[in-house]
Amino acid sequence: MASGLRTLGSKAAAALDDELMSSGAFSIDQLMELAGLAVSQALYALSPPSKSPNVLIACGPGNNGGDGLVAARHLFHFGYKPTMYYPKQSKNELYQRLRTQLEQLKVSFTDDFPSAAQHTDYIIDAIFGFSFSGEVREPFPAVIQALAQSKKPVLAVDAPSSWNIEDGPPCDGPGKAYQPDALISLTAPKPLVKWFTGRHFVGGRFVGKEIAEKYGFDVPPYRGSDQIVEIGKNGEKL
Amino acid sequence: MASGLRTLGSKAAAALDDELMSSGAFSIDQLMELAGLAVSQALYALSPPSKSPNVLIACGPGNNGGDGLVAARHLFHFGYKPTMYYPKQSKNELYQRLRTQLEQLKVSFTDDFPSAAQHTDYIIDAIFGFSFSGEVREPFPAVIQALAQSKKPVLAVDAPSSWNIEDGPPCDGPGKAYQPDALISLTAPKPLVKWFTGRHFVGGRFVGKEIAEKYGFDVPPYRGSDQIVEIGKNGEKL
Repeated sequence: MASGLRTLGSKAAAALDDELMSSGAFSIDQLMELAGLAVSQALYALSPPSKSPNVLIACGPGNNGGDGLVAARHLFHFGYKPTMYYPKQSKNELYQRLRTQLEQLKVSFTDDFPSAAQHTDYIIDAIFGFSFSGEVREPFPAVIQALAQSKKPVLAVDAPSSWNIEDGPPCDGPGKAYQPDALISLTAPKPLVKWFTGRHFVGGRFVGKEIAEKYGFDVPPYRGSDQIVEIGKNGEKL
Repeated sequence: MASGLRTLGSKAAAALDDELMSSGAFSIDQLMELAGLAVSQALYALSPPSKSPNVLIACGPGNNGGDGLVAARHLFHFGYKPTMYYPKQSKNELYQRLRTQLEQLKVSFTDDFPSAAQHTDYIIDAIFGFSFSGEVREPFPAVIQALAQSKKPVLAVDAPSSWNIEDGPPCDGPGKAYQPDALISLTAPKPLVKWFTGRHFVGGRFVGKEIAEKYGFDVPPYRGSDQIVEIGKNGEKL
């Protein structure tokens, strides 16, 4: 579906991130904390812990995975029981700290995604984000396959993993048939939302109109002090 | 008023902060972002921008002031027009970045608090927090006096500035008659809430039951995915 909001392409999203962290003076800790909080609040809006207490969170090796690590911590505080699948752990100091924060809460980690996916109530796909292109490397093809075949609902972070940011679902491979139930776009929808048919949230409320105009996207129509907004086909608040 | 929740004394609050940033593996960027967001959401709950578009934020030289700098940025995104009073600026890299983030949004800074306080709709007191003790140093005595005499509503962050964290309002000086309209306690109420008579929020949702028990306070009764909760005299949600 089209989101009705102007989208932010892969290169523009990378340039915006660079600007926010250089002249914008943001730390990645700040941006990731707000992004991960938004992810957790979108899941709460989709399905509160009374309905889906167990959440399986698949984290990739980069920033998308970092958003997943932050989201898991907030979900724990909201009353969920998160389980992490995080097979390619970054040596970056921030990611190690985010992992430690989860360990302190005794959040469990699993090595077997397909099996864990059968025993959870909701799945968060935080594997690849706006910087993904090219091939899905091991061990993620089997994970994408499990996501594509999952009977459990899936919330994807910024992009359904394995989709091309501009061109949407791949022409072949496990991601071809992958259509998550929900998506949370961070900062702004990416062009791939044209191929996405589920419920659509936007989060990551840290950019004003001036920056949005510079990069050619729209500030999402947030309500009040909310950190997320669900949007319809024409960009309206739902 | 008593908050009905167990309180966190000055030394315990400092020890908890140390633990969160050492074995807890949090960065101050993360904690301050969540604290500042909670402050901004408490103000929104008290008075949305349609009612009080202009907000004057008095920031002290330490972490309480940093929470105010973060809150101002979020308030801008919520539709307020914040003005900053920040006379003793820290050379710490984080605080300089938080200031730059505001400058990028063209948030204005003032040197004249008493005058600005007459022309605003709401005031946030982010001068001193749980680590305050002893004397109010220049230029803040006149600011505390203006807060005490203000006809404009005031939201205090963690503590009404100049109050003793354990013993409440000072016996003399400008803070003796200072009673803000609202307070947001961060992580947990401090003992001074016994002398506070206004509306009381708690925010800073980053601690689980285990840590709360270790430090002898209660995890506040947050609702759903909210980052703040208003509490009554007996610790109940309002």
